Amino acid sequence: MFKKILIANRGEIALRVIRTCKEMGIKTVAVYSTADAESLHVRFADEAVCIGPPPSNMSYLKMSNIIAAAEITNADAIHPGYGFLSENAKFSKICAEHDIKFIGASPEMIAKMGDKATAKATMKEAGVPTVPGSDGLLESYEEAAKLAKKMGYPVMLKATAGGGGKGMRAVWKEEDLRKALESAQQEAAASFGNDGMYMEKLIEEPRHIEIQVVGDAYGKACHLSERDCSVQRRHQKLTEETPSPFMTDELREKMGKAAVKAAEYIKYEGAGTVEFLVDKHRNFYFMEMNTRIQVEHPITEQVIDYDLIREQILVAAGVPISGKNYIPKLHSIECRINAEDPYNDFRPSPGRITTLHAPGGHGVRLDTHVYSGYIIPPNYDSMIAKLITTAQTRDEAINKMKRALDEFVIEGIKTTIPFHRQLMDHPDYIAGNYTTKFMEDFRMKPEEEE
Amino acid sequence: MFKKILIANRGEIALRVIRTCKEMGIKTVAVYSTADAESLHVRFADEAVCIGPPPSNMSYLKMSNIIAAAEITNADAIHPGYGFLSENAKFSKICAEHDIKFIGASPEMIAKMGDKATAKATMKEAGVPTVPGSDGLLESYEEAAKLAKKMGYPVMLKATAGGGGKGMRAVWKEEDLRKALESAQQEAAASFGNDGMYMEKLIEEPRHIEIQVVGDAYGKACHLSERDCSVQRRHQKLTEETPSPFMTDELREKMGKAAVKAAEYIKYEGAGTVEFLVDKHRNFYFMEMNTRIQVEHPITEQVIDYDLIREQILVAAGVPISGKNYIPKLHSIECRINAEDPYNDFRPSPGRITTLHAPGGHGVRLDTHVYSGYIIPPNYDSMIAKLITTAQTRDEAINKMKRALDEFVIEGIKTTIPFHRQLMDHPDYIAGNYTTKFMEDFRMKPEEEE
Repeated sequence: MFKKILIANRGEIALRVIRTCKEMGIKTVAVYSTADAESLHVRFADEAVCIGPPPSNMSYLKMSNIIAAAEITNADAIHPGYGFLSENAKFSKICAEHDIKFIGASPEMIAKMGDKATAKATMKEAGVPTVPGSDGLLESYEEAAKLAKKMGYPVMLKATAGGGGKGMRAVWKEEDLRKALESAQQEAAASFGNDGMYMEKLIEEPRHIEIQVVGDAYGKACHLSERDCSVQRRHQKLTEETPSPFMTDELREKMGKAAVKAAEYIKYEGAGTVEFLVDKHRNFYFMEMNTRIQVEHPITEQVIDYDLIREQILVAAGVPISGKNYIPKLHSIECRINAEDPYNDFRPSPGRITTLHAPGGHGVRLDTHVYSGYIIPPNYDSMIAKLITTAQTRDEAINKMKRALDEFVIEGIKTTIPFHRQLMDHPDYIAGNYTTKFMEDFRMKPEEEE
Repeated sequence: MFKKILIANRGEIALRVIRTCKEMGIKTVAVYSTADAESLHVRFADEAVCIGPPPSNMSYLKMSNIIAAAEITNADAIHPGYGFLSENAKFSKICAEHDIKFIGASPEMIAKMGDKATAKATMKEAGVPTVPGSDGLLESYEEAAKLAKKMGYPVMLKATAGGGGKGMRAVWKEEDLRKALESAQQEAAASFGNDGMYMEKLIEEPRHIEIQVVGDAYGKACHLSERDCSVQRRHQKLTEETPSPFMTDELREKMGKAAVKAAEYIKYEGAGTVEFLVDKHRNFYFMEMNTRIQVEHPITEQVIDYDLIREQILVAAGVPISGKNYIPKLHSIECRINAEDPYNDFRPSPGRITTLHAPGGHGVRLDTHVYSGYIIPPNYDSMIAKLITTAQTRDEAINKMKRALDEFVIEGIKTTIPFHRQLMDHPDYIAGNYTTKFMEDFRMKPEEEE
């Protein structure tokens, strides 16, 4: 087993990793930027090394500084957390070259899964469903019509140079295809000077449902069921839950099998997440694979009594997994508490926390690196806490989240607590009736009405 | 279901009950003494009524004030928590007379279990093992010798008027009995002017192991396994765990059956605890039954995913139980954090908490009514928080407790956090090798050495 692990990250995830290391009797090294000197991850680690000032490319992304910190402190492994260098093939390689175990994927695997086109091709090979579409650009209307017929309507036309919705058209039936293609091409040509188009199957009422997998050094993988992360704002997850209210036993069985197949096909080692889009007919399509721990991993831990960070460390140390798949017996919800003003378009709200009172009691877990008096630096991600509730049923978990949010006091800055409180009262959320489009229509009720 | 519950208690248990009521959509009424106006149970309840000044007989024990508060606020039920009026037959009766549901045992049941002699006789009738002993006073040496032979040595001679160890003798073999009886009688006569003696079987290396039971209004009961509460100081529990490190599947089965038999024999309704003494040969003897929620109930909740307060409320509302017994799948430990100075004979340390930082993360639960800035009044029990850790194994739960205690910051007053931290490092505790005598030999290591 490792004697000392350096955590190449900050904030709650650095603290999360330190906690498990302590429980396993492994010494820890925190690294921090000058902006993070007062963070709890620095205080709770056995050693701490300053690796530079903000922004991140001067510190948390500066590989040479991190490797130097590991060498000075004699760390025999590095845990990268999420973000920063966690999916950086070069960093994984440099660690190996310095004989430091990178607690994450190999450089080859990161490279393979980091590039979306390669990842999709690999998954197709492995027999995992991917979003059907044209191989490259459409040559003609006839080709488009033939392909659309084969895939089935609706389809989505997309400009290869596109962005911001320009040159995109959803087409619901064959008679509309020619006109849609022509107008999209014109728009693309006018917007980007490039009218190249490709086609994909349109995913109706898409949900983002991901499967947690763990693979060991011996090619064996298992899955720990799903997390529903469909409540997103500009591709940022806001809240997650497991089980998904959209899940059926049959679908879980199928998606779990596909995820394990994906992991075993590439001989995946470590904790990883296979993200799928699921349409309203419960067809599912591979989106991407994250070769690291996810922000939302605690909800999985809560429903299967599994410490995923511990598992990552064990697997990295060469311990084989049992291979058993885990099915949730409870329901768990996570709300990401951000230092943002939900009444003001989620504008970041850094600054000093003057008062912090944490919720507690039955079924409540809080992961946070902040405290009363802490100054949130403006340099990083705005997430300051993860509030997790767990109960026998989804209704109970929602009610528990409401009362925990009501107890949670953070003063001095704005936070997304009021957003989550309103979300928990939203009829569509309560009904489990939401897709990745949910936030497009969500409006905060005025502050005074609360 | 109840519309509004008044919580006739204070501190963490009042908050605990309020939390579950909120989650169940039941309105809450807090009552408080003038010393508790700033407590969280007052802040988080829907309504709060001041019922008088300290001491408790002017407020929390003042039945007329509490009934008046319930009537003014239209509460249809009263939850008594633990201590105070929770096992007061008269209060239970007065509630019934005022048509307010008392969430606890009936007056008859409290009366029956509140008197130790009656409780023991009832349990004997029910076929639950009780500590063998003489029926009343010993008439002669011959009677004593005959009885001791029948029960088996060792036995304990006790003065009926006794106290403080005076007139008590442990006797390990027959040839010592006569002398022991004579000297104990002399001592008792000298100390109390009464030389009446009785005899009980001496429980060797006793452990305090209790079984949680739940009974419903239809005469059905189930058990939720055990809690080991042997680590006590002057009969005050300091830390509890489940499963007991001394437990075997066979013993649990036997003790569970006995506890359910006890509960069903008296048609027990609600959550209750049957306390047993277990000797080193794993014989177990009924000690007493607590007809209320226990301080240490959270560890049971943690290992079986059961909300016991919710269960109390459901049963009180007439909902039948499933009757299934629950066996722990995890391990959970609770440390009672008291405002006491463990370096100074656990002397109470009331006053203002200047800083409070709560531990968090995976497997950590904190139940507390205090916060940064809170002033602990000198009038009540010194317990200010319950820290609970839960993990797959006992070792992991201990390691989690260590790191959670290390994270827990309470400044401004003295607390028992350092005691628990040292306890978690004690070889006998780690080995699970402790009895109710454990604390007699425990000495704090000096503060500077930490």
